[in-house]
Amino acid sequence: MELYSSYISRLIGELSVLPGIGNKSAQRLAFHIINMPKDKVENLAGAMIEARNNIRYCKCCYTLTDSEICPVCADEKRDHTQIMVVENTRDMTAYEKTGKYEGVYHVLHGAINPSLGIGPGDIRLPDLIKRLQSVDAREVIIATNSSIEGETTAMYISKLIKPTGIKVTRIASGVPVGGELENIDEITLSRALDARVEL
Amino acid sequence: MELYSSYISRLIGELSVLPGIGNKSAQRLAFHIINMPKDKVENLAGAMIEARNNIRYCKCCYTLTDSEICPVCADEKRDHTQIMVVENTRDMTAYEKTGKYEGVYHVLHGAINPSLGIGPGDIRLPDLIKRLQSVDAREVIIATNSSIEGETTAMYISKLIKPTGIKVTRIASGVPVGGELENIDEITLSRALDARVEL
Repeated sequence: MELYSSYISRLIGELSVLPGIGNKSAQRLAFHIINMPKDKVENLAGAMIEARNNIRYCKCCYTLTDSEICPVCADEKRDHTQIMVVENTRDMTAYEKTGKYEGVYHVLHGAINPSLGIGPGDIRLPDLIKRLQSVDAREVIIATNSSIEGETTAMYISKLIKPTGIKVTRIASGVPVGGELENIDEITLSRALDARVEL
Repeated sequence: MELYSSYISRLIGELSVLPGIGNKSAQRLAFHIINMPKDKVENLAGAMIEARNNIRYCKCCYTLTDSEICPVCADEKRDHTQIMVVENTRDMTAYEKTGKYEGVYHVLHGAINPSLGIGPGDIRLPDLIKRLQSVDAREVIIATNSSIEGETTAMYISKLIKPTGIKVTRIASGVPVGGELENIDEITLSRALDARVEL
């Protein structure tokens, strides 16, 4: 005999593929959702579908946004000659929250990771090189995570860009080694930006 | 300026009201969902809505099911004179997984919790009393959690039913005190059932 109704089993199955959601959490969430008011469930499901359908990559910096050009790239007051390279949109948001950075971004959507077979061509790195050929960049600030993959990516980008004469900097090691950028407080992130060193 | 697109912010907001999902987890889930294939997001959203719309309470034992009478109550081979009282459908499933129990269930959907203002009338307890008046019950096994609320509920039910002459038992204290029934292994649950004592 099926232990749960097929509707519940299916929902548990769908939920348990999400990151950080094991089978127990999926069960808990499924029963919570079944007990939620109908309109709340529709709101939740609708938010998922709408976000998935309306979010795309910014044509300029490749962050996730709902317009052709993201608000940061579209802002004429920002310094478009200073480009901060980050691993993902959440890291970009972490720096936006500091309110201290006035340049623009380039979102890689990943980091070089040979053990997972992720090479420079699998992230938005070729797009960065192409972008640097068409814009007048003064400085590229590398703000990848201080993990092994992030450091590898930083070194790789540095070696690629330095011959072009563009200044390449790396956010200071105020960021704890092994830490994830998105979990760090805004003051530490600000200090790491101020103390950036040329590579 | 909005840090995220309104679609992302809305999705993060909807996800962060789910139990055990904080703001960081909600962000992580939201970006995972945005990067999922379109049909997978539709499957996930559809599973939520379908489960919510098709699941109802069994007319007999009040477990969550997709038919008027749940498969356990509809099974004529089960012993309908032995009723196990549990706090929720997941706890019922935990006992079904042992394969050792041949009676039927009554799902309370909660436990008496005076500090949260949850009294006997706020859970499916009046329905149990009504049910016992119309069926020929031989034994009521109380399998609420061994938390304070679960023990309180067990004592309350016992005092209510004993005067009617129906045998009232409580699963043995093999279940660790303070533990949640759904997290306990099947052997411990089986032993607790075998060693049940009359209240």
